[in-house]
Amino acid sequence: MATTEEHQGITFNFSHFRLERILNSNTSTKLVSLLGHFTDLSEEKWAVVILEKKPFTEEDLTSKGLFSEATKLREEFVNDIYGNFDCFPQPEINSVKTTVIYPATQKHIDKYSKQEVHIVQETQELYQEVTLKHIEREQFSLEWLYNILEHKKEKERIIFEDPCEETGFILLPDLKWDNKNPETLYCLALVRKHGIKSVRDLNSNHLPLLRNILTKGVAAIEEKYAVGRSQLRIYLHYQPSFYHLHVHFTYLKHDAPGIYCEKSHLLDTVISNIELMPDYYQRATLSFVVRENDRLWDDFRGDSRKAIKHD
Amino acid sequence: MATTEEHQGITFNFSHFRLERILNSNTSTKLVSLLGHFTDLSEEKWAVVILEKKPFTEEDLTSKGLFSEATKLREEFVNDIYGNFDCFPQPEINSVKTTVIYPATQKHIDKYSKQEVHIVQETQELYQEVTLKHIEREQFSLEWLYNILEHKKEKERIIFEDPCEETGFILLPDLKWDNKNPETLYCLALVRKHGIKSVRDLNSNHLPLLRNILTKGVAAIEEKYAVGRSQLRIYLHYQPSFYHLHVHFTYLKHDAPGIYCEKSHLLDTVISNIELMPDYYQRATLSFVVRENDRLWDDFRGDSRKAIKHD
Repeated sequence: MATTEEHQGITFNFSHFRLERILNSNTSTKLVSLLGHFTDLSEEKWAVVILEKKPFTEEDLTSKGLFSEATKLREEFVNDIYGNFDCFPQPEINSVKTTVIYPATQKHIDKYSKQEVHIVQETQELYQEVTLKHIEREQFSLEWLYNILEHKKEKERIIFEDPCEETGFILLPDLKWDNKNPETLYCLALVRKHGIKSVRDLNSNHLPLLRNILTKGVAAIEEKYAVGRSQLRIYLHYQPSFYHLHVHFTYLKHDAPGIYCEKSHLLDTVISNIELMPDYYQRATLSFVVRENDRLWDDFRGDSRKAIKHD
Repeated sequence: MATTEEHQGITFNFSHFRLERILNSNTSTKLVSLLGHFTDLSEEKWAVVILEKKPFTEEDLTSKGLFSEATKLREEFVNDIYGNFDCFPQPEINSVKTTVIYPATQKHIDKYSKQEVHIVQETQELYQEVTLKHIEREQFSLEWLYNILEHKKEKERIIFEDPCEETGFILLPDLKWDNKNPETLYCLALVRKHGIKSVRDLNSNHLPLLRNILTKGVAAIEEKYAVGRSQLRIYLHYQPSFYHLHVHFTYLKHDAPGIYCEKSHLLDTVISNIELMPDYYQRATLSFVVRENDRLWDDFRGDSRKAIKHD
């Protein structure tokens, strides 16, 4: 991140924003990211503008808010007891969350642009020849995680700890969670044992570890947040964002990021699979999603042997 | 649905809406459903009001829309090149999709109320003793589906058909899809063969059927909609909404309903599991979600034998 203070003293005026293109639009969450110029500031420097409609608050739903004389209703169509309308709230209670990045670099533009994604089917051979080599080449440092395990950082955030070197783990609130609202509960269990990269490495030797995380993780969350096992989604990502085994605990009704079937594997299913077949994760074909601009996609798309020769 | 025309001639005035309670609120999609009275119409009859913020359109993002003099910006905080604002668009370009159900019955109130949900772990024994009995007791008629398979209904909607009685299927656009926009593509493959209720019934005898759906379904969608296999999420639900085997095809970037890991099973994973172990789906523990007001939840929660004695 640049250390300039370019924003200071700048006043953004939306009537001078000239849209170059829509980088991304999510019709479900009502969010758009835009690229353009503030023509009164500069014809050259890019601005990224992110707009997101806001959720309704209880305050909005009062007679001083939406249900006031000032709100107009326009009928679209009525069928029997069902009526459809357009409702026009006053601006004060219907504002839009707005982020301006100015000046924006190419990296910002890429980050907020729509990314093409692809699903791939990874056989054990493709794991060994393509994915594993990719992980070894591109893995980020795990220093931050070892700092947590060694109590050098974030010690005060620990919810629960089992110190056993074989089956132990540390349970923390995920950084995406405010550690308060149980409706968006998101905790992470980091295993103490080093060297288990992902589900691909799991076999029957790890069953005590997996069962321990399930039992003690659930008990700790029940005790601290009063959310029981039947309201928890407990899962592992494949591919994970870092290659040291960890397990996600989220509130079942919370649409946490990355809980889709092409990315998440329920811990109960993982345990059941290994119980049925000790080397399940060394033999199964696993699907996952890669971004089009990720080198891994080139490796999967091309002939895998050829891709490896590039190294 | 009642056949009265209660809405006709009624003018709803939001300033006379008295909120009784918020039935549900989705902070991700920015939707609320509300229960209350229009006090000028009746103090007794209930109204359900559903409000949803709208996605941005290209038209909104012009100098006549959001980027006009009329739009005010209020600074929240600025940190380096990142600025956060509240933006106040004019009501005309920032309306709220509104549905009024009046008068609303208890069934409407239940439908739009937040539902508590629970995840259960179904062993093969629990399937036999609890779930299967529940399915046999509560299954809806499949007449509508047989009508499609026999070309009595929706024949013009068929995208592709393989008439083989063992491995054949019919591919249709799902009713949730407009059959146009590839960004929200959603197709359904209905197998011709009767009697396969769900993934629980699948074994190695069904591998030719499953592979046929995968290969020919992908080819038909590629030919008709130019969406390739790597951009398709191909999966089965467990529990499904009806108990005749069917496979969902959705665009990978489309957040279709029910694609979470506790509900959806990728067809590639299903095939891989049966290849690894022919009776995988008769032996595995499968997790799924049940609503709290569903009798199945009582059956799972209670002692399963006791629940069965109730029958």
